Amino acid sequence: MDTRRLEAFSDGVLAIIITIMVLELKVPHDASLPALWGLWPVFLSYVLSFVYIGIYWNNHHHMLHVTQRVTGAILWANLHLLFWLSLLPFSTGWMGENEFDRWPTVVYGVNLLACALAYFLLERRIIVVEGPSGKLAEAVGPDLKGKLSPLFYIAGIAAAWLWWPAVGMAFFVLVALIWLVPDRRIERIVRS
Amino acid sequence: MDTRRLEAFSDGVLAIIITIMVLELKVPHDASLPALWGLWPVFLSYVLSFVYIGIYWNNHHHMLHVTQRVTGAILWANLHLLFWLSLLPFSTGWMGENEFDRWPTVVYGVNLLACALAYFLLERRIIVVEGPSGKLAEAVGPDLKGKLSPLFYIAGIAAAWLWWPAVGMAFFVLVALIWLVPDRRIERIVRS
Amino acid sequence: MDTRRLEAFSDGVLAIIITIMVLELKVPHDASLPALWGLWPVFLSYVLSFVYIGIYWNNHHHMLHVTQRVTGAILWANLHLLFWLSLLPFSTGWMGENEFDRWPTVVYGVNLLACALAYFLLERRIIVVEGPSGKLAEAVGPDLKGKLSPLFYIAGIAAAWLWWPAVGMAFFVLVALIWLVPDRRIERIVRS
Amino acid sequence: MDTRRLEAFSDGVLAIIITIMVLELKVPHDASLPALWGLWPVFLSYVLSFVYIGIYWNNHHHMLHVTQRVTGAILWANLHLLFWLSLLPFSTGWMGENEFDRWPTVVYGVNLLACALAYFLLERRIIVVEGPSGKLAEAVGPDLKGKLSPLFYIAGIAAAWLWWPAVGMAFFVLVALIWLVPDRRIERIVRS
Repeated sequence: MDTRRLEAFSDGVLAIIITIMVLELKVPHDASLPALWGLWPVFLSYVLSFVYIGIYWNNHHHMLHVTQRVTGAILWANLHLLFWLSLLPFSTGWMGENEFDRWPTVVYGVNLLACALAYFLLERRIIVVEGPSGKLAEAVGPDLKGKLSPLFYIAGIAAAWLWWPAVGMAFFVLVALIWLVPDRRIERIVRS
Repeated sequence: MDTRRLEAFSDGVLAIIITIMVLELKVPHDASLPALWGLWPVFLSYVLSFVYIGIYWNNHHHMLHVTQRVTGAILWANLHLLFWLSLLPFSTGWMGENEFDRWPTVVYGVNLLACALAYFLLERRIIVVEGPSGKLAEAVGPDLKGKLSPLFYIAGIAAAWLWWPAVGMAFFVLVALIWLVPDRRIERIVRS
Repeated sequence: MDTRRLEAFSDGVLAIIITIMVLELKVPHDASLPALWGLWPVFLSYVLSFVYIGIYWNNHHHMLHVTQRVTGAILWANLHLLFWLSLLPFSTGWMGENEFDRWPTVVYGVNLLACALAYFLLERRIIVVEGPSGKLAEAVGPDLKGKLSPLFYIAGIAAAWLWWPAVGMAFFVLVALIWLVPDRRIERIVRS
Repeated sequence: MDTRRLEAFSDGVLAIIITIMVLELKVPHDASLPALWGLWPVFLSYVLSFVYIGIYWNNHHHMLHVTQRVTGAILWANLHLLFWLSLLPFSTGWMGENEFDRWPTVVYGVNLLACALAYFLLERRIIVVEGPSGKLAEAVGPDLKGKLSPLFYIAGIAAAWLWWPAVGMAFFVLVALIWLVPDRRIERIVRS
């Protein structure tokens, strides 16, 4: 079984997630500019989650590019990742509507953490199938970014919980910036 | 006519169904944790239906992998399956919002039963076209899981109706667990 | 330019239209059976429109299968068809919510008529590009069904307007039944 | 890395954007014709934005057709374009619901301007990767339409802001008409 239909299904789900998030940006009934300004927390949450889905799509794209074979376990690890990503519109909307209040920000961070762990599990599962000498294993290497991200999410969750939501958000934005650079390691391996 | 566009369309519909179900998880206006806990029945329903759509996608994927030719009757049997699956967001939402009350649980079970029968009809239709010596006929064989599932759904519907919805739910979860194992029979045939 | 991406985009739009129509089937807050029965007009409208989108997908699939070349005019004729189809969730919802009242039924018929005309225009446009000796021209032939449908829609619209909406609906159901049989003419040509 | 999956993902997002816009066309509870007429501003906004998404899909299709290689920067330039396009359902809905009031019309124009700039950035990025002697560079040439559009959007925004929203709308409709003609330059290059 090849990766074609897995990619098509994942692309479909990611395309829908990234697009229905905008439905949380409810059209104000008032035609005034203040009514528009009032949406800034929802808009900012949307931008951040859009970037995150973009990062996941990008890395997913790279990862499956060096994957040869799809097993049942990989299919389910992929669905598990899509499950946590599918909750992002909800946690994004909750955080935006409550203007980055404490609990919504904590829950948003937990959602991001769950996505990161699900991505890690999918990556490990593919490496198990492809073998330690496969392209993905070589490409991922020590995977510094993959190991730092969960720590940063946990730090962000703790900061939002115990201290100040804005500090938590800073961590979540930081991880997005770290990942915005596409995984050049895989690109390098693919080219060579 | 090959299976390519049938797969693409089905993938699209399944990707949308699995994603719009999350829209039933309405963002609470309150930023408190109790407001979030209040969503547990909707969340649990979402998880179960997500797993079911995943199972259908998975098995559909396997089934069309061993299908050579698509006729008009197969196209319509496939649309018939997608129709019942497209009602899952509705029945899931109704059950979740009413915290697994009797009638919503019964209707959810009827919806699952209708999906199972539609899948069975599609499978039979493909076997008729491919012939009894085709790959799918060989792969499905006596199809124990396919024959047990409707019985379990009916048991669950009866239990929810006459006795206690939670017992019905237990049956629906049980069938999902049985199917979570991908159809290794087909995988085996494909490999050989 | 080949038909691949045109098919992919059309499949995507049709898959979304067929699926978001179910969002008009609003989850009742009440867990009783009468609350569910109250949805029958919305449900019936959904079934009819689901079948119609299925028919359009099916025929579109057949038509593009015998199309070799895509021009800018074909792209726009295709988008024009998708535009009218994209209004079906709206007209279906309006008709269902008002229990097949006069004006919503008339508007639903007008929407179906507009879809049929847009499909006809797309077909003609492809035939112009492919030439009168192309496969599609041969396959369509005198196109009895294509010419009868608009007449039946107009009869249905007139009946719903001047007489009784139920008679109009009978016409719309009749056309769906006529088309449910896939276009065997094209299938025959493709095979030969 | 080839353009296949980039096209598939963009097609998915564009198909969803073009379809969920119709959700802003809320089903009126009243079954009368006046209730339907009351939707004309929302309907007109929908038509215009549908045409715009169609234009972007069309030009995107042509542009990627002459693109050979996809880099990380192109992926992100493409996501940046999809981001601004994903806001169109929001700005379209706001403008329609407020019957082309001043600020919504200005914001709609700003959204169109942002989409045009994002498209321009994506085009430039691809030309940088493909080189000045690439097919796209040759096809785009002096790119008169691409340079006029932002000026017309700015004129429309200024007119809606300082003078009369209807004049601004006239500019936005004018740009759509200019682009409705598919990019024959690229078609010509592709053919030769």
